[in-house]
Amino acid sequence: MQLLHGDYMIIAQLSIVPLGEGTSVSRYVKIVLETLQKEHIKFETNAMATVIETDNISTLFNVIEKAHNSVAQSGVERIITEIKIDDRRDKPANIQSKLASLKK
Amino acid sequence: MQLLHGDYMIIAQLSIVPLGEGTSVSRYVKIVLETLQKEHIKFETNAMATVIETDNISTLFNVIEKAHNSVAQSGVERIITEIKIDDRRDKPANIQSKLASLKK
Amino acid sequence: MQLLHGDYMIIAQLSIVPLGEGTSVSRYVKIVLETLQKEHIKFETNAMATVIETDNISTLFNVIEKAHNSVAQSGVERIITEIKIDDRRDKPANIQSKLASLKK
Amino acid sequence: MQLLHGDYMIIAQLSIVPLGEGTSVSRYVKIVLETLQKEHIKFETNAMATVIETDNISTLFNVIEKAHNSVAQSGVERIITEIKIDDRRDKPANIQSKLASLKK
Repeated sequence: MQLLHGDYMIIAQLSIVPLGEGTSVSRYVKIVLETLQKEHIKFETNAMATVIETDNISTLFNVIEKAHNSVAQSGVERIITEIKIDDRRDKPANIQSKLASLKK
Repeated sequence: MQLLHGDYMIIAQLSIVPLGEGTSVSRYVKIVLETLQKEHIKFETNAMATVIETDNISTLFNVIEKAHNSVAQSGVERIITEIKIDDRRDKPANIQSKLASLKK
Repeated sequence: MQLLHGDYMIIAQLSIVPLGEGTSVSRYVKIVLETLQKEHIKFETNAMATVIETDNISTLFNVIEKAHNSVAQSGVERIITEIKIDDRRDKPANIQSKLASLKK
Repeated sequence: MQLLHGDYMIIAQLSIVPLGEGTSVSRYVKIVLETLQKEHIKFETNAMATVIETDNISTLFNVIEKAHNSVAQSGVERIITEIKIDDRRDKPANIQSKLASLKK
């Protein structure tokens, strides 16, 4: 059985990396994180990616499009953006409950 | 220098996989491919993913959202969707030119 | 200039997911984490993946092969394992320094 | 029921990309493909990744390690290597049978 929309969260993993801007890319990761902050979306950054929680796949894509375009607008000529979406509708899940389930 | 919008293509890699529907998932890959066909988007399927070519990141996300939701509407309770976008703006590129550059 | 081997760390992202075992897969993530622990490798788990730090790509692959095989030995008939490696050799980097660079 | 080792194939997706070498990376993709060729491993290249077929996860990691190190030896200071493994043991599968199952 699928939960009604609004009763489940979508958890996603995001990575946006510029090619052609040297080996240090933290400047561009910061641009991405600033965009996520402006959009008031819940996220957590780790050493390899940013984990995002949202109740809606449209919102997710909308925010990622803005983040991707912010990096393009900073002058980057080639951008590799990776997204992994975990959309679970049989029980309520979020970033915290997923982590908690590993500690049981 | 970035090309003007419309002069470059976005190439993306898409994989949509259901959890909880057994080990055979080709039924769901077909749902995804039928959605891409209906949307008249250019794509090529290989053994691990589908490569999509589009001139626009909004179009890309719009079509992927439809494909993802088609799988959800078929009754799948957990969907893992992965997207990798190669957005290159310093020279015209498409699926064919990327492959051709490996043969020079 | 590349650093000498031993002066840099490899940071990797790992996800191992079974198909055909239902929508709840935390049991299998735990098998993976137990294997990483037995191998005394440094790792951190987030809601979408596990981040691993090692000084050596051979060690990394060796440990991941063991983790993957542990899941197979538990009876899983289809396993999707994903690895993303960030191998940087122009300056010392590890999980902590990558995160710290985002806060400057 | 799991097939005996040797009766199933592992299908994998590989992408190796240098950071800090400009926006054109086909030179490095060619180094990767030359390594795969020397190792007599079966592979197919598409616009976003290379699909590899092997009967053995150890062989797979061994070949990818060589390919990754070839790129490092060419002087690249930061390498992002991505691997996705589809290890299916309940029925014989290979690159061709996976594609064929989408056309039924």
